[in-house]
Amino acid sequence: MIIALAGGVGGARLANGLARILPPGELSVVVNTGDDFEHLGLHVSPDPDTVMYTLAGLNDAERGWGLAGETFACMEAVGRLGGESWFALGDRDLATHIERTRRLRSAETLSAITADFAQKLGITQAIVPMSDDKVQTRLQTPEGLLAFQDYFVRRRCEPAVTGMLFEGAEAAVPSPGFAALMRAPELRGIIICPSNPFLSIEPILAVPGVRGWLQNRAVACIAVSPLIGGKAVKGPAAKMMAELGLEATPQAIAKQYDGLIDGLVIDSADAAQAYGPCQITDTLMRGVPGQERLAREVLVYLGQLSPRQ
Amino acid sequence: MIIALAGGVGGARLANGLARILPPGELSVVVNTGDDFEHLGLHVSPDPDTVMYTLAGLNDAERGWGLAGETFACMEAVGRLGGESWFALGDRDLATHIERTRRLRSAETLSAITADFAQKLGITQAIVPMSDDKVQTRLQTPEGLLAFQDYFVRRRCEPAVTGMLFEGAEAAVPSPGFAALMRAPELRGIIICPSNPFLSIEPILAVPGVRGWLQNRAVACIAVSPLIGGKAVKGPAAKMMAELGLEATPQAIAKQYDGLIDGLVIDSADAAQAYGPCQITDTLMRGVPGQERLAREVLVYLGQLSPRQ
Repeated sequence: MIIALAGGVGGARLANGLARILPPGELSVVVNTGDDFEHLGLHVSPDPDTVMYTLAGLNDAERGWGLAGETFACMEAVGRLGGESWFALGDRDLATHIERTRRLRSAETLSAITADFAQKLGITQAIVPMSDDKVQTRLQTPEGLLAFQDYFVRRRCEPAVTGMLFEGAEAAVPSPGFAALMRAPELRGIIICPSNPFLSIEPILAVPGVRGWLQNRAVACIAVSPLIGGKAVKGPAAKMMAELGLEATPQAIAKQYDGLIDGLVIDSADAAQAYGPCQITDTLMRGVPGQERLAREVLVYLGQLSPRQ
Repeated sequence: MIIALAGGVGGARLANGLARILPPGELSVVVNTGDDFEHLGLHVSPDPDTVMYTLAGLNDAERGWGLAGETFACMEAVGRLGGESWFALGDRDLATHIERTRRLRSAETLSAITADFAQKLGITQAIVPMSDDKVQTRLQTPEGLLAFQDYFVRRRCEPAVTGMLFEGAEAAVPSPGFAALMRAPELRGIIICPSNPFLSIEPILAVPGVRGWLQNRAVACIAVSPLIGGKAVKGPAAKMMAELGLEATPQAIAKQYDGLIDGLVIDSADAAQAYGPCQITDTLMRGVPGQERLAREVLVYLGQLSPRQ
């Protein structure tokens, strides 16, 4: 069994490639919940939903978020009523947030709800929120401390980031599913997906017990760099690295995961900056075939590093 | 200034006729909230919304509820996730419930939210919930006590009704707007719309102070019978009357409003059963012109009875 640690779009894409290659039940995707927030009184879980929609084949591949063929009638009506419409929630997507919010208020856990939704959508892989406790990513910027979605959506990643806070992380525990995975005897390897290391993976590592588990892992762990030619495919990873005083190179990614990985998968465009144990390939995933191709290469590389060297 | 007491569709139609005839600001519609309920974790206010959508010209006239041109993408997705989909909430309609629920949770009152929504939708008449307190209509049936929407939507009014309860009414107070209207020096008359007397008007009368206010009114009050030829245009009024041991006649309606009205507007089809002070006319409202015609006739009749005889 393989664990993939994932955030949003890039992570979901590699997770989908892995899901399509590995036999049913042999992949568990542990997902960042640091981006979760309340909007319009609804609990929105952007990363778990992106992974869920992608694995269900329902995601909008072009837009990169939400559901394919989505409509936005409700949000338009919210705007007419004077409500907040800066964060677009599609009509079908809203169903996820409405049902999740209702069930959370009935004292069900985020991970139980996520598992049930995934099953209803025909997904045979486990989608496991990192924690059922509230962890909120906040960005230190010259404008002050910004909530993740304020930074990411409302301010379009424009403010310079000088640091991150994962509010609530110190008091959080891994979700029961994640805790069970950490101790699963059938675990064969761990893959850190090409998600933003600072915004998507770091919150997972901030949950007490997770970093130590990876440091003391008995199986191989590899990360896939989110950089291609020193840039992120999507999102602010490269911009943030510059703001944090880091070069957008494989070395900086490897240092970010120092002690946690046995090897790094990097793009050919970054081959000149290769650092430490590396697998060089084309990391851009073009469509589902591209996801499957990269997943296959990642699994081969993981196999080469197992048992852990 | 005229007060109209209204429930759902029939009440909303006459209210709309009145709204189109009376100068802006001279109509206040006090609306039943006994049908309000929580669904999918959202606060749904069926009657206030029907009045609001109708006065905004956004209602679906053919279906009789909800918004014209409505879509149901969210509800379909709720069903896919295993959620309750027996009560259809349209995508645009959902915006009303989402925003209302969010604002109620922020400690705003139902009447303040309703007033703001109405203004946002360009309505110049006051739409006033009968109370900001929770009042819940329940039906006594052979199947036991049923919540209103369980009876009305889920069981399609099939169970025989042997009585009604308005849970919470005894502890409720009129909304501030309603309380102000009751004492408004510019009040010229009161119209009880052709809504179901037992399900739409009785809950309003059950709010402490309302029945006494009508009994001691200083202005004329008339009711419009919801019956046409002993049948209701829509809804279970006639069926319920039979189950409650009442004949579906103007007499039974007049007795229901005994001491509260100065005259009853009845349909020509019920002319043979005319009882007490009556105005006989065509009470079926065909489209907006039909609403305006009946509103005009009702206002003339109200004028004839004023000052109160």
